[in-house]
Amino acid sequence: MEYKHGGDIYTNEGMLDFSVNVNPFGASESVKTAARESVEFISDYPDSYCRKLRSALAEKLQQEMDEGCERQTIEEMLVFGNGAADLIYALVLAEKPRKAVLTVPSFLEYEQALQTVDCQIRYHKLEKKRWFRLQEDYLQELTPDVDLIFLCSPDNPSGQVIERGLLEQILKKCEQNHIRMVLDECFYEFLEKPQKAAFARTAAKHPQLFLIRAFTKMHAMPGLRLGYGICADRKLTERMAHIRQPWSVSVVAQAAGLAALQEEERTKAIREKLAAERSFLENGLRAAEIEYIPSEANYILLKSPVDLYEKLKKYHILIRDCSNYRGLEKGYYRIAVRKREENEYLLQALITIQSYRSQAKCPMKEEKTWD
Amino acid sequence: MEYKHGGDIYTNEGMLDFSVNVNPFGASESVKTAARESVEFISDYPDSYCRKLRSALAEKLQQEMDEGCERQTIEEMLVFGNGAADLIYALVLAEKPRKAVLTVPSFLEYEQALQTVDCQIRYHKLEKKRWFRLQEDYLQELTPDVDLIFLCSPDNPSGQVIERGLLEQILKKCEQNHIRMVLDECFYEFLEKPQKAAFARTAAKHPQLFLIRAFTKMHAMPGLRLGYGICADRKLTERMAHIRQPWSVSVVAQAAGLAALQEEERTKAIREKLAAERSFLENGLRAAEIEYIPSEANYILLKSPVDLYEKLKKYHILIRDCSNYRGLEKGYYRIAVRKREENEYLLQALITIQSYRSQAKCPMKEEKTWD
Repeated sequence: MEYKHGGDIYTNEGMLDFSVNVNPFGASESVKTAARESVEFISDYPDSYCRKLRSALAEKLQQEMDEGCERQTIEEMLVFGNGAADLIYALVLAEKPRKAVLTVPSFLEYEQALQTVDCQIRYHKLEKKRWFRLQEDYLQELTPDVDLIFLCSPDNPSGQVIERGLLEQILKKCEQNHIRMVLDECFYEFLEKPQKAAFARTAAKHPQLFLIRAFTKMHAMPGLRLGYGICADRKLTERMAHIRQPWSVSVVAQAAGLAALQEEERTKAIREKLAAERSFLENGLRAAEIEYIPSEANYILLKSPVDLYEKLKKYHILIRDCSNYRGLEKGYYRIAVRKREENEYLLQALITIQSYRSQAKCPMKEEKTWD
Repeated sequence: MEYKHGGDIYTNEGMLDFSVNVNPFGASESVKTAARESVEFISDYPDSYCRKLRSALAEKLQQEMDEGCERQTIEEMLVFGNGAADLIYALVLAEKPRKAVLTVPSFLEYEQALQTVDCQIRYHKLEKKRWFRLQEDYLQELTPDVDLIFLCSPDNPSGQVIERGLLEQILKKCEQNHIRMVLDECFYEFLEKPQKAAFARTAAKHPQLFLIRAFTKMHAMPGLRLGYGICADRKLTERMAHIRQPWSVSVVAQAAGLAALQEEERTKAIREKLAAERSFLENGLRAAEIEYIPSEANYILLKSPVDLYEKLKKYHILIRDCSNYRGLEKGYYRIAVRKREENEYLLQALITIQSYRSQAKCPMKEEKTWD
């Protein structure tokens, strides 16, 4: 079977992995210690309700929510999964939408999940000239025949944030037309002002909204599988519990998640470091004359007439070939923002590749349309 | 939400847990070491194909299979999940059966999973007077309108093995009528002669058969979530891959599973110890005049007019109240086979409870109808 995502280091052993958009500083020592210590308890079934994690996460989320939103209320809005991907599939199965709208390009698993319930999908094409950023014309898609939409902010692979005013209009129209609005915020912690940009604030008052998040990216624990949803629609979250096994989240993931919630200082420091590295990479890409979309997240979408995936492999660098994203074609690549030394190495390789190219007077030099 | 299984030590903290049927000796040191060591790699996505685990498990399974079954063939028959429960749900979703037959009493999750696809369920009632053991009359259920059956051997909660001759007849009829035969063997490693009793032998030649197994019970790692399926129907296993996220099995579960496969000697020793303990418990139950079904697994089904669940709680012992099993009513309880000291403590508590009862000249003393 074909593997469709980044991060396949098992096929590409020993390569410097720019294909996966996980915090390059890795999991914190305290998260790893908590995970190791929890191994003592693997002979117990996991707590199906993730009680400790639920309570600690609710406390943290209180900072994001409108004032007056009680911790108990937030606890009841949470649903945990074996990674965010587990929640995407569970949500779709619980909703069984007949018609959904997907923006393209976006994360592949939305479409995969919708196919499991034979959902009809309408694709809303995002435009390259607008950096694949969602625009107001999207509102026209929200017709009463639609049951569910997936949105992602910051979006993957473009790194674009959906503007809050637009999100509010979308939510309003979803409420009017009884459309489930699913907003994937798995990368929101990489944003400059995550709490300002995140959309959880009003979730308690808008049961039509389902937010998806994960410990995967910022806390760098994709190997443990821990994601969560925030939704005030109790009927939906209960349905999701019924259509899944009771023990989706392992003992180790619960313990690691609990430790990760204590990492606010580290998260802030990493966010700042990666913002600086993103600028560093973007400057380097400009210098190397490689077309890219300025990103607000920890990854950057590139376009090149050169097969960068193959060329960079020779430098033992793995990047994400985005040609299997619906709405993109061969020539799009996603790179992660990594540590300075690694970014320097990538840029050096790209500059070398480009210089060969200009020596060969390659006629395919791309137009600069993305200003 | 109500919790429907054993092992809820989070609600019942500090109790001696006879409610969950996991090997009481816990995970081995080498499994725990492997799990702890793998924490170093949690910032990588798990290998979606579980390559190392797949290869090692295929090698081990070769011992069970008919001679001439190549390792490569077995590798291709394997599908891994976030615990066996994950596979039950994934299988049902991949098959979308319209009609299924379930034996009652049996494991609750089969029914839960079938409900997610609105499957019509026919219940085949197992008889107490036959120790809830599957009989030949079951064959009549396998009519062409049936799409899927779940069977469990040794069965849960009865501890009864389905006789091999009967299994073969069932498989034959399933093949004739295009019925997916799902056989849950999660407890087969506790049987006196596991390889003889297990039904994997001919799986390569019978794509209609889907076997479910787990590392959960014998290797005592329910907290890590690792189960697997064995099936020669490539179309089905590929469908199962499509309807699930690619990263169901964590880095830690894969590492622990790999270590568990090296534990044959320990597994054998535990199997023997638990067989002796089962006899010890059964003798004790007879002496205490508590009705039970002689079991072949690591748990025993009891019946009592006394509310043993509530009474034993006072001794800080948690047992499984089986009244929420379809086909059973209040009065059925399941106890796990644990270590000698713990079993002694349980028997002592039961004897004390029974002696109060006879002092009170309880009129409800049950008939001995089982055997």
